[in-house]
Amino acid sequence: MKIIIDAMGGDHAPQATVEGGIMAAQEFGLDVVLVGRVAEILSCIEQLGHGDLPKGIAVADATEVVTMDDDPANVIREKKDSSLSVGLRMLRDGEGDAFVSAGNTGALLAGATLIPKRIKGIRRAALAPVIPNRETGALVIDCGANAECTPEYLLQFAYMGAYYAKNVMGQSNPRVGLLNNGSEPSKGTELQRETYALLETAREAGKLNFIGNVEGREVMLGGVDVVVTDGFTGNILLKTIEGTAMCLMGELKDALTKSTKTKLGALLVKSGLRGLKKKLDHAEIGGTVLLGISKPVIKAHGNSTAYAIRSAIRQARDITASGIIQDIRDNIDEIKLEKE
Amino acid sequence: MKIIIDAMGGDHAPQATVEGGIMAAQEFGLDVVLVGRVAEILSCIEQLGHGDLPKGIAVADATEVVTMDDDPANVIREKKDSSLSVGLRMLRDGEGDAFVSAGNTGALLAGATLIPKRIKGIRRAALAPVIPNRETGALVIDCGANAECTPEYLLQFAYMGAYYAKNVMGQSNPRVGLLNNGSEPSKGTELQRETYALLETAREAGKLNFIGNVEGREVMLGGVDVVVTDGFTGNILLKTIEGTAMCLMGELKDALTKSTKTKLGALLVKSGLRGLKKKLDHAEIGGTVLLGISKPVIKAHGNSTAYAIRSAIRQARDITASGIIQDIRDNIDEIKLEKE
Repeated sequence: MKIIIDAMGGDHAPQATVEGGIMAAQEFGLDVVLVGRVAEILSCIEQLGHGDLPKGIAVADATEVVTMDDDPANVIREKKDSSLSVGLRMLRDGEGDAFVSAGNTGALLAGATLIPKRIKGIRRAALAPVIPNRETGALVIDCGANAECTPEYLLQFAYMGAYYAKNVMGQSNPRVGLLNNGSEPSKGTELQRETYALLETAREAGKLNFIGNVEGREVMLGGVDVVVTDGFTGNILLKTIEGTAMCLMGELKDALTKSTKTKLGALLVKSGLRGLKKKLDHAEIGGTVLLGISKPVIKAHGNSTAYAIRSAIRQARDITASGIIQDIRDNIDEIKLEKE
Repeated sequence: MKIIIDAMGGDHAPQATVEGGIMAAQEFGLDVVLVGRVAEILSCIEQLGHGDLPKGIAVADATEVVTMDDDPANVIREKKDSSLSVGLRMLRDGEGDAFVSAGNTGALLAGATLIPKRIKGIRRAALAPVIPNRETGALVIDCGANAECTPEYLLQFAYMGAYYAKNVMGQSNPRVGLLNNGSEPSKGTELQRETYALLETAREAGKLNFIGNVEGREVMLGGVDVVVTDGFTGNILLKTIEGTAMCLMGELKDALTKSTKTKLGALLVKSGLRGLKKKLDHAEIGGTVLLGISKPVIKAHGNSTAYAIRSAIRQARDITASGIIQDIRDNIDEIKLEKE
């Protein structure tokens, strides 16, 4: 399996992307293509102590770089030789099985829609991270690709999310919930009420295991595998979880370093806390899949370290191996909207 | 100062409301009126070991009870002798300075709007809890009273929130942020973009310290005092914070009880963690003010313990003493919408 990496994308590129790519190639026995400015990439490889290209690593040239300031709507056309554009064309042309980028999210969304394109029948691609929770995690779809959604988009998100939970997360009968401000079907705005009706119809037809509305609490406490929401609300949810976790870990650190006694205690509980830190660690989780695109595209966090890039590559491997995209394609008649 | 309590509202009523009312009367030297079924209230008082009515405590009769199943839209008219309706009429008629209820939120909103009514010139009342964060806390307005909002409502929420932060939280120049899925003015849906423009105009006129868009992260990490949002998104935010905090505290407990070594360490860090638990504790924080009503109305959490009721009463005292409602009234020409 060959994974294409946007070597120039992310706050710590190309150092982190190159090192992460090499880590993944070694640890998982994958082929990795680093796309970007060849001289810079080779210099990073050398700095890491490799005289030659490490095993499994290839380099592909792209002279331009998409920055965070570039306008996502135009940059794909304007910077045709960017690592993002070149990498996505390689993906489209079968020169790799999946694409990973830690760069400009909007540009990645636009590029993925323009180049490898959406699966035929899918209206909108959606960002769908797996959020660690008290159970085995919940997939939240959409987390920011589409701030404004229709009930029909959300219905397709529910299907794609359920396929992901089944194929990649191994949930045999994934519980699909609609994120809302209460459990009753009448809750929310028009968007939630109309989506509720569509999901309920899909449940009655035996197509989805729709469990009804879920609230912000349940995403973290468990009881739901796929959380369906528009990209605006999903983004608020995701950032709020991040902020709350960072706040509490900060408070916890303050509490543990409060006195000599607590510092001593902290040494003893350290091993226990390691699991908690690991569970919350972006670098461990990997990236966010862009569901609905015809090939696997994974967005890694902008501030990804080498280890985080390595984890995103592992996730790209899992998604590719799972066959989820073929499964969506095979069942597109079920997912496709009648209006089409 | 006299605080009116809906003695029959909440999961643990009337035991928790009666005990909390007595605690508050004793601790803060307040007059407290317990409204509800007199026989039940007196029986609770007796069970708490008081032969007579404790100092500062009065009881007012209301034969009906609003339940969680009652329809908020109709229950105020249908149950005219409920503790909720009677208490709100007492508030309107000046038989107390503030009203606290842990009962049906929708019914409380409807009742507060129908009986003491909104401040003249305010379009919608909003639920505005103070969220503990890495700084001194952020007021989030609205957290669920109005799932669907216009930009004009949000502008008024911003003003009311800023008055609250100034009068009750003691922020001299409160930083007002618009909850959004990114920092750029173009982010969000039409609601956020139009609200952004209104808030920016208010800032240019020197009326509000609008600091721009804020994301879910900043609510918890700090940098903003008043977070303006529609009730749907605010509710998702609030529940997500609750769920994340509960999830992490659960994970922390698991981590600390993992082995004999971590258990020993847990004993040593216990004192440090107490502050963290206290910071997150609903029972400590009190309730949520309903801003925009002509008299102080506070919603306590449905599962409030006696101590939580006591804290909500303390908050009712602080709000009443702050003079925020008079301040809003005095400045209503500034806050009032032009369309009116």
